[in-house]
Amino acid sequence: MRDGRIAAIGTNLEAPSGTPVESLRGELVLPGLVDAHTHLDKTLLGMPWHENTAGPALVDKIRYERRMRREWEIDAARQSARQIELSLAQGTTHILTHVDIDTENGLTCLEGVLSARDEWKDLIDIQLAAFPQSGLMSRPGTLELMREAMAMGCDWVGGLDPYAIDRDPKGHLDAIFGLAQTFGRPVDIHLHEPEEMGALTLSLIFERVRALGMNGKVTISHAFCLGSERSHIVGPLLDQLAELDIAVITTGPSGWAAPSVSQLTQAGIRVGSGNDGVRDTWKHYGDADMLSRAMFIGLRNRLCRDDEVALAFDICTLGGARIMRSADYGMSVGCAADLFVVAASGIAETVARQPVRKLVVKRGQVVARDGECIRHAR
Amino acid sequence: MRDGRIAAIGTNLEAPSGTPVESLRGELVLPGLVDAHTHLDKTLLGMPWHENTAGPALVDKIRYERRMRREWEIDAARQSARQIELSLAQGTTHILTHVDIDTENGLTCLEGVLSARDEWKDLIDIQLAAFPQSGLMSRPGTLELMREAMAMGCDWVGGLDPYAIDRDPKGHLDAIFGLAQTFGRPVDIHLHEPEEMGALTLSLIFERVRALGMNGKVTISHAFCLGSERSHIVGPLLDQLAELDIAVITTGPSGWAAPSVSQLTQAGIRVGSGNDGVRDTWKHYGDADMLSRAMFIGLRNRLCRDDEVALAFDICTLGGARIMRSADYGMSVGCAADLFVVAASGIAETVARQPVRKLVVKRGQVVARDGECIRHAR
Repeated sequence: MRDGRIAAIGTNLEAPSGTPVESLRGELVLPGLVDAHTHLDKTLLGMPWHENTAGPALVDKIRYERRMRREWEIDAARQSARQIELSLAQGTTHILTHVDIDTENGLTCLEGVLSARDEWKDLIDIQLAAFPQSGLMSRPGTLELMREAMAMGCDWVGGLDPYAIDRDPKGHLDAIFGLAQTFGRPVDIHLHEPEEMGALTLSLIFERVRALGMNGKVTISHAFCLGSERSHIVGPLLDQLAELDIAVITTGPSGWAAPSVSQLTQAGIRVGSGNDGVRDTWKHYGDADMLSRAMFIGLRNRLCRDDEVALAFDICTLGGARIMRSADYGMSVGCAADLFVVAASGIAETVARQPVRKLVVKRGQVVARDGECIRHAR
Repeated sequence: MRDGRIAAIGTNLEAPSGTPVESLRGELVLPGLVDAHTHLDKTLLGMPWHENTAGPALVDKIRYERRMRREWEIDAARQSARQIELSLAQGTTHILTHVDIDTENGLTCLEGVLSARDEWKDLIDIQLAAFPQSGLMSRPGTLELMREAMAMGCDWVGGLDPYAIDRDPKGHLDAIFGLAQTFGRPVDIHLHEPEEMGALTLSLIFERVRALGMNGKVTISHAFCLGSERSHIVGPLLDQLAELDIAVITTGPSGWAAPSVSQLTQAGIRVGSGNDGVRDTWKHYGDADMLSRAMFIGLRNRLCRDDEVALAFDICTLGGARIMRSADYGMSVGCAADLFVVAASGIAETVARQPVRKLVVKRGQVVARDGECIRHAR
């Protein structure tokens, strides 16, 4: 590696004298993991245990979270740093995080995540989406905050269930696509809406992508409607996603309908993944490890053969990088030297066993060793 | 603890002099984990990595496994011991394992598992089910082997998809219930059959339980049909399962329809869980840890609140013990001293974080410490 890039790949390479050398003995070097959908600002990592008493519906959890963010003093900067440290220790080199923007918290979450990103910018690439978690049209004042958030440096315009949560799909989509046009930024929409509802919302998204020429600049997260059992719903949606180069992010959820990653990939659609919330007010589960995420994707999609497991790994690496438009990502000469090392026979074993990351390298610099990050969060 | 049982619970207890004392500082003592559905004879743990190239259907995987058992020399005794060691290190104190009985392997798998059970009997309780993995009526000679297997000491008569795999539901069920009657043993049937097919097979099982008075002596593993979205299918089945005290075992599978553990529990049905295959020829995934299994159940069933997560834990402990009819299982004075210790604030954190087992105790004896078993398999 030289100047943060892969300079040569081979055996018996001569390094200029004084070059630091890492001796790996038959270990496996793999491209950095990409967590393309998480919420750094809301993890409870490292905080005292808080009993979860939230109600079952999505809106219950949104309200509960807004309340607990204040009551439990969830500091976005401190918590982001904790999850970043854990992610780095596990080989993640790129993160796309959605940051809550609402009329109660204003821009404080964003300020926290921005400061964490700045503090860790030499160790990891982080993109931010301004995310109207509590609703956009349904909570007057949010759109203005979203505009400020974009002006403060968010990389993505986020959206959320335009009909099921915000109750105004036309208003919601016009607003976020308007922001995207104003700021020249891509869009990522959390879409939990199931079956026909989600399909119709997707068709409204397709209209706007087509009208605005935003092909290749939109991502749908979760996309539960693509997990419908009814092929007459899913088939036409896949065709249009491919045509408009709209990407899909799936966590491989266990308790929800979920798109088939094989179907998406075969249709030529870019697919990435992410840990979503890690130990937050929504649920206690989560370890921020994109290798266990690959396992979840494998289990959800019944990926059993080694070549199938490799698809799950691709989604958690290259797939996310293609969504984050990391042009120099990869394992070829000239690519950014973003990688990790494990003792494993191959990719399938790496996903199945999730071995300790012996080494994590970001732009040629060792950022974690034997499962421990070189920098520690407060 | 005295004579392998819990002798007293409290603070400032006086132990007779010479009693070994373990100092726990605010750590949590929990009842031993119960893996009530696994396949010790087929794990590949500790073997060289083998690429999985099996086809997608259940029958493909069954054929592939039969072939690879020979080609890769999967020794049932050696492999069982390896999984037992890993289970013990993670706090499992009871295992119910299904052992393949077929015309190709004869009784060799059973001999292997019996020898491993014998070798580890001071450290863990293991029950065996004679399991016609390759079919019963469809493979003449299997029934005779099953009879021999029961005579050799199997605790359970196993069955498998009487219609979908064996293609003769009446013949299959009459055969296994006949064995159960002959040997006075309970029955555990792997039932992957979905929707109406599974529902009809369940009704044939109900008939036999009723006719033979086998209430409380039958378990249905997987029971995918109970995960149907259609309540007119599921409702009547739950009523009869409760009435006949038929238990259900679920792994919380991600890629398949699965019974709702909340629904089952509310209906008064005994529910247990197990790891099923751990790194075998079916799939590479699996770590034999019943705490991660509790997490899988939690994710599959959207158990988010602390009290809901506790249900997942109950299923992986007491639920399994009730299926294995371990009468002295529990955390009260007089119960068998089968327990484990973790540093956690409570059950929800234990399930979410799956912390290292500081101590595992079986019948009053320390069998694992800091995640390592006191005995090692070859």
